[in-house]
Amino acid sequence: MDTNLQTVEIERKAEVFNWPFSRIATSLEASIIREILKISSRPGLINFAGGLPAPELFPIEQIRECVDAVLTNSGPASLQYSLTSGILPLREYLAEHVSKKGLPVTAENITITTGSQQGLDLVGRAFLEPGDYVLTELPTYMGALQAFNFYQVIYCPVTMDKDGILVDQAEEKIKQFKPKFIYLVPNFQNPSGITMSLERRQKVIDLAFKYHVPIVDDNPYGELRFSGKAVPSLRGIGGDAVIGLGTFSKLISPGLRIGWVVAPIACSKVIERVKQATDLHSATFPQYIIYEFLKRGYLEPHIEKIKVAYAHRLDIMESAMRKHFPENVTWPHPEGGLFLWLQLPEHVSTMKMLNESIEAGVAFVPGRPFHPDGSGDNTMRLNFANATPEGIVEGIKRLSVVLKKYC
Amino acid sequence: MDTNLQTVEIERKAEVFNWPFSRIATSLEASIIREILKISSRPGLINFAGGLPAPELFPIEQIRECVDAVLTNSGPASLQYSLTSGILPLREYLAEHVSKKGLPVTAENITITTGSQQGLDLVGRAFLEPGDYVLTELPTYMGALQAFNFYQVIYCPVTMDKDGILVDQAEEKIKQFKPKFIYLVPNFQNPSGITMSLERRQKVIDLAFKYHVPIVDDNPYGELRFSGKAVPSLRGIGGDAVIGLGTFSKLISPGLRIGWVVAPIACSKVIERVKQATDLHSATFPQYIIYEFLKRGYLEPHIEKIKVAYAHRLDIMESAMRKHFPENVTWPHPEGGLFLWLQLPEHVSTMKMLNESIEAGVAFVPGRPFHPDGSGDNTMRLNFANATPEGIVEGIKRLSVVLKKYC
Repeated sequence: MDTNLQTVEIERKAEVFNWPFSRIATSLEASIIREILKISSRPGLINFAGGLPAPELFPIEQIRECVDAVLTNSGPASLQYSLTSGILPLREYLAEHVSKKGLPVTAENITITTGSQQGLDLVGRAFLEPGDYVLTELPTYMGALQAFNFYQVIYCPVTMDKDGILVDQAEEKIKQFKPKFIYLVPNFQNPSGITMSLERRQKVIDLAFKYHVPIVDDNPYGELRFSGKAVPSLRGIGGDAVIGLGTFSKLISPGLRIGWVVAPIACSKVIERVKQATDLHSATFPQYIIYEFLKRGYLEPHIEKIKVAYAHRLDIMESAMRKHFPENVTWPHPEGGLFLWLQLPEHVSTMKMLNESIEAGVAFVPGRPFHPDGSGDNTMRLNFANATPEGIVEGIKRLSVVLKKYC
Repeated sequence: MDTNLQTVEIERKAEVFNWPFSRIATSLEASIIREILKISSRPGLINFAGGLPAPELFPIEQIRECVDAVLTNSGPASLQYSLTSGILPLREYLAEHVSKKGLPVTAENITITTGSQQGLDLVGRAFLEPGDYVLTELPTYMGALQAFNFYQVIYCPVTMDKDGILVDQAEEKIKQFKPKFIYLVPNFQNPSGITMSLERRQKVIDLAFKYHVPIVDDNPYGELRFSGKAVPSLRGIGGDAVIGLGTFSKLISPGLRIGWVVAPIACSKVIERVKQATDLHSATFPQYIIYEFLKRGYLEPHIEKIKVAYAHRLDIMESAMRKHFPENVTWPHPEGGLFLWLQLPEHVSTMKMLNESIEAGVAFVPGRPFHPDGSGDNTMRLNFANATPEGIVEGIKRLSVVLKKYC
């Protein structure tokens, strides 16, 4: 038998096999962020790319306590299959949390997802068909583009000012293209850091109702406000016109991969059904851990702790940038979130700078992949939360050397 | 502000909103298994439906040890974002495990998934386009049909005998329909319990090479053999003609939701890219827990333990069935896995029996949803592993009362 198997092995290598992949699968590009993540363990590299929170701030001992309690009190249930929409106590907790901020909802409105990224994919699955239009901010979150690209959609990007998308331009595009939904990151937007003003939110919601276009409110950073005044959420103002996406990735741990979708029940049911076919349900055990963490009241103090640390890192990064960067590199000051968004002179290509920058020991994300219209080659995104304060200063120094060559 | 929000709430309810769902999303049906799972917490219900392993056999104390070690030794990494294809040590471990059984592979050939169900969806994403054909066994796993249905495919089901699918019929269908791949559950098939013979495996692999049709080898139960002789795996014999799906759901815990796909590297890269868009990666923390469990050598003794328990439960269920069931209800004796597959007289509809059976306090899965051609209404699947021995005897008694009315 062994000898036979070996003969077979030699004959049956992949080279001779034509793999009949689907056209869309082969046309997809890998995310540049994920590609950078692969090399980010390179010794000495300072990583301003990716949306990684600070690992040294993870609440490891609290998570250990929570795991112990879960295994003691709900061991078998926490390791068993569970409902597609997620475990009931976590959905009830989230429903209560969401209800405090606007239209009341119940656990039936909530679906637990494998991070917000799965929320984006499930919304895509539920709504999008080839040739559909999606209205987005310009720039917009590249992970959303990746998720929606699979459904072969066309984007209607809308220009932003410091208060969010320009409503008149949005209305024109809605009238012309009838998009399936409006995708927005209203708080500390990824990548621009912009927070949409209340007035702008109300106007966009008016558009949603006038033209019957749902809004997808992607809100991973809303709780990470360091300064300024909180703005009511789109879901809070717009109620059932809005599908809300939330996540614990930036607040507790991305490795637990627990996010959620809040939507009108009719929509939740469709999302549940499309999710069922993709993975039956998200991991049960992390859902129990997160619920225990919330139940013990650990979330609020932990958010306070990371906000202080991130605000400090933002301050350090901006100071270092003012000190070291060429004057023709500019950025708006964000009031929260994880990201700084840099404008370089128009002739500069940050895509072309990336390799040299990595050679110099610092990684960033070039801005072009955030632009569905292919513009933005002179922009870049820096994560100020992930590196330590010392690393931030050193990384900005390294980046400034490269910037001075190009700008 | 509060008053305004309340007015808005009343106006902005979902009823007035037309949700522009995609046609395929609204046409999908919820899995009957998942619907039964929803009512399975009903007090006193004995649940032979679903593929749930026995919760009282979960290795809770060993998992507690593993979690403690993970948090102590790899705390930050286990809670952080990780690679789309999965954490390297787990992929290396799996590559070694797979290599022992056939064509050698490396970590690059492995993708970690959120259970095998996500493996099925990702294979669908990578290969299938609307109108494509997929060759399956008849009956076949309904979760696979659910995953592939999203891609709007057409099935070519092939009749099985006690050794697996009929190869001549398969060849005819391959010639006629040119399916994108051949989907098989070769060991203790879900739902039929049939294990494909070595001869049949070799012939199917010959077909795969002759017609350049990849095989998808879905193998969640292969390690759960109670009697008879193990047969070399399809992947082991067929090498790169075969995409293998594995999972720890039936061996350690389904709630950790860790499965894997082993495929030729060119195929792994496509799977990685399509996975990236769906959820970035599967939860990191459960991957570390599983790897720790494997590293400590806990898997083999645990499998031995559950095999003894499941073989005992199978024996109890078959004895009770022989004692209580009408004589015109028959089933083949499976040599492993989780399921018994019952044939009832042709005029009986198990779909119609289900509600009455649940009223009588016992749930099963009707066989028709496992039949892509709509046949099989006189079949049903029973899970013999999930209920306790006492529950099995009582459940079979309850079911026999309903069966006697219909058969």
